[in-house]
Amino acid sequence: MAEAATRRRGRGAGGGAARRAERTAVRFEAAKFIERQIPNLEILNDEALAIIEANAEILLEETGVVFSENPAALERWKNAGADVQGERVRIPRGLARQLCATAPSSFTQHARNPERSVVIGGNNLVLAPVYGPPFVRDRQGGRRYATIEDFRNFVKLGYMSKWLHHSGGTVCEPTDIPVNKRHFDMLHAHMTLSDKPFMGSVTEPSRARDSVEMCEILFGKEFVAENTVMTSLINVNSPLTFDATMMGALEVYAESNQACIVSPFIVGGAMAPVSVAGTLTQVLAEVMTGVAYSQMVRPGAPVIAGAFVTSIDMNSGAPTFGTPEAAHITYGAGQLMRRLGLPYRSAGSFNGSKLPDAQAAYETANSLNVGLLAGVNFMLHACGWLEGGLVASPEKFVMDADQLGALHGMAKGVDVSENGQAMDAIREVGPGGHYLGCAHTQANFKSAFWRSELLDYKPFETWSDEGGRDTYTLAEARVQKLLGDYVAPALDPEIAGQLTEYIARRKAEMPDAFS
Amino acid sequence: MAEAATRRRGRGAGGGAARRAERTAVRFEAAKFIERQIPNLEILNDEALAIIEANAEILLEETGVVFSENPAALERWKNAGADVQGERVRIPRGLARQLCATAPSSFTQHARNPERSVVIGGNNLVLAPVYGPPFVRDRQGGRRYATIEDFRNFVKLGYMSKWLHHSGGTVCEPTDIPVNKRHFDMLHAHMTLSDKPFMGSVTEPSRARDSVEMCEILFGKEFVAENTVMTSLINVNSPLTFDATMMGALEVYAESNQACIVSPFIVGGAMAPVSVAGTLTQVLAEVMTGVAYSQMVRPGAPVIAGAFVTSIDMNSGAPTFGTPEAAHITYGAGQLMRRLGLPYRSAGSFNGSKLPDAQAAYETANSLNVGLLAGVNFMLHACGWLEGGLVASPEKFVMDADQLGALHGMAKGVDVSENGQAMDAIREVGPGGHYLGCAHTQANFKSAFWRSELLDYKPFETWSDEGGRDTYTLAEARVQKLLGDYVAPALDPEIAGQLTEYIARRKAEMPDAFS
Repeated sequence: MAEAATRRRGRGAGGGAARRAERTAVRFEAAKFIERQIPNLEILNDEALAIIEANAEILLEETGVVFSENPAALERWKNAGADVQGERVRIPRGLARQLCATAPSSFTQHARNPERSVVIGGNNLVLAPVYGPPFVRDRQGGRRYATIEDFRNFVKLGYMSKWLHHSGGTVCEPTDIPVNKRHFDMLHAHMTLSDKPFMGSVTEPSRARDSVEMCEILFGKEFVAENTVMTSLINVNSPLTFDATMMGALEVYAESNQACIVSPFIVGGAMAPVSVAGTLTQVLAEVMTGVAYSQMVRPGAPVIAGAFVTSIDMNSGAPTFGTPEAAHITYGAGQLMRRLGLPYRSAGSFNGSKLPDAQAAYETANSLNVGLLAGVNFMLHACGWLEGGLVASPEKFVMDADQLGALHGMAKGVDVSENGQAMDAIREVGPGGHYLGCAHTQANFKSAFWRSELLDYKPFETWSDEGGRDTYTLAEARVQKLLGDYVAPALDPEIAGQLTEYIARRKAEMPDAFS
Repeated sequence: MAEAATRRRGRGAGGGAARRAERTAVRFEAAKFIERQIPNLEILNDEALAIIEANAEILLEETGVVFSENPAALERWKNAGADVQGERVRIPRGLARQLCATAPSSFTQHARNPERSVVIGGNNLVLAPVYGPPFVRDRQGGRRYATIEDFRNFVKLGYMSKWLHHSGGTVCEPTDIPVNKRHFDMLHAHMTLSDKPFMGSVTEPSRARDSVEMCEILFGKEFVAENTVMTSLINVNSPLTFDATMMGALEVYAESNQACIVSPFIVGGAMAPVSVAGTLTQVLAEVMTGVAYSQMVRPGAPVIAGAFVTSIDMNSGAPTFGTPEAAHITYGAGQLMRRLGLPYRSAGSFNGSKLPDAQAAYETANSLNVGLLAGVNFMLHACGWLEGGLVASPEKFVMDADQLGALHGMAKGVDVSENGQAMDAIREVGPGGHYLGCAHTQANFKSAFWRSELLDYKPFETWSDEGGRDTYTLAEARVQKLLGDYVAPALDPEIAGQLTEYIARRKAEMPDAFS
């Protein structure tokens, strides 16, 4: 691994010095992934956890799951000891959990810049941006279909966002590019416009293969064979159904030792029961099944146990976000996944608002805080989500990305060192004094308090004189500033050329498809 | 106590039936105070707690506190065994904590409508509105000095807010009324426009006495002698100073068995060290001193241990809200106060924004969530706070008050009854089905998910057709609706008359004072 990394860094060493100099000149600060120093909130007691785990086993054994249009998967399950009838797979109690045991509790996803590699699992929290919206809304242009230009801008914003550890995947759908060719342009953007880790395509097994091949160009074939360089999103078709497309992509990634998030996608009351305990039971059954399947494909393949959960407004049928029931499920699923020994994905900048207004912020803050305290290890959608995930918003992106800094601060916990205790300061200042000028304050003030780089801290008069700007307006300016300051991270021109050639060749091999 | 309550309800029974009928006709839903079914988040381990507790004792013994211009207090401390030099009181290790032991861990604050009485302590959380802003901002009128009309509107909004349990105190400063007479009008508003519990005046010991006398009219003299009917806010002049005005008010209330919140008021880096552990040490020392003093005045007097804490923006000196350091202090202080066996006051709808925008909502949501999980028992400022507490906003009031519903939902915890487990539903629906029509959903959907009464859940097209309103706009409409629907709770005309007479007489006894 060390050898591969060296080889990788050494490639195209001719222009290396110049490129290093360039990179130093325009270096953007990037925080390390969060390593929590605070406990998780555990809202389920042992009895409740035992009930849900037992119920999940009963479900798998008695009701079972469906692996649709996937004879190879059915064969694998049969060989593992499941009862397979048609496409229905009934899994004897304990089998799925037992198969999950070979999945690592933690793994490293490598970035092309080794400083940006992330460790997913344990007490860590890795933050990745919004995934999937077909629409974009920005203040200037309003709401419209997303394009590859929007996509590239989101990747740039992600690269420039200090508190974001991951470049994500489909930060928005580039609807101006044929469906069957989008993945090339999306991956190319992540690979060339950022040096943070990223996700691969899952919309077809062949596109997963393309993703692996592009990574082989970027990282080197040997490096990819030995290391995880992609984490990709495999949604379960809840309830209890695993379709051939998603499972096909999972098979490709697991075979290549690339990471997958096995993630039930649940709007409570539609794809799962209206109760929290019932939803947790189904989520656990689905996750165990998907993870077990990944381990049948390749024991030890890295995998993340996911739970995308929202509640529903029973008046309108609309999904709702930042609600207490979604929080309960997120907390509870965290406990269940830790007991399974798997890294956990959930939460995000979820909200149902049409605009980056107070509703968007309340709901988002509710969900981000839950994510931190629920022990989430990989938070997709950590910034930029709007309108129930239909819309990606650059202003919301930078607003949320700023709040992610607060999560970093929260996770640090409390320093009770002698300096943290500050007894000398209290003695020095004494009753009726103030701390602004004391030695302890002078020595510590720069790092003492987290500070937003976006929100308004000005006195009323100054704020008013400057136009009385709201957060949306401040965010619009920040988006422009970040995109204006953006400089791409250096990339070996040889690799860049190979990527371009690969994409041109592959695109030429297929006709355009728009659905 | 039961007798007193009966007597109270029986008073003026002549018009009772008519008034009851009227009250029934315009009954507004009011939730019971929160009884948490979820654990608190404990971010400090036992070692950290022991360090902070030991340091607080060292501080009290070695540095001590100041009770300014209050010879009676100094005498009390001397008699209790403290070392008193001038106004400086040094408290031997263990003494303050020992004195705190007579304070009740929980108490009932009675409302004139017994259904609205609250129990403060234990696992409970009682929510009260914003306190103290000299300014009001509403969408129509902009930012301006608050008046008694604003005050009355906030009391009405509080009465109409389902998730608010308490009418609060100085919901804004009625600056159009002389400083020395405001408390009469403020108390009159709480007593007549709402039937929820409220707070008394603390700006002069004489005003505290007036508050008690007005309560004696409202509740009956005997009832007040035997029961707690006010919870009032006593701020400590941090660091480590207890001024005569605040302590004088505390003395009046404690002697009357009325509750006080002993609350350090801290902007970190100014009134306390820039470190969390240092601030917690000072807060604990201050709270123990103030609570101990209340118990010297009257052992067993009800008291709440408070912690108002914010961080500071070291660039501008402005206080900042919803930050991780404020969260750490709120969590840590909760642990320390529980170990002291006292009800705990902290958190609120804190934010530094000038407008009820995304900043206001992010910061508020951060603080509200922390308050719930930190084990806060009494949350002042739970709605309506804007611009660092300089401004009370009716739109923000209804926005926050709506979010308090989400806290109620969160606190409920997870139902793992047979109905909650929903195994029949999962079996009924099976792989690939949906839950919208199943029996379990039909039986449970009405109460399954918390639903905002303010935020937008509509499809984009409907929302757009209706004018594309943001949260601020929706909130403005809700304020108008609530104020339009408002009907005062019935009050015995005899009592109402006595209150009016009392206020007229007392006001006539004193010249106007505007500072």
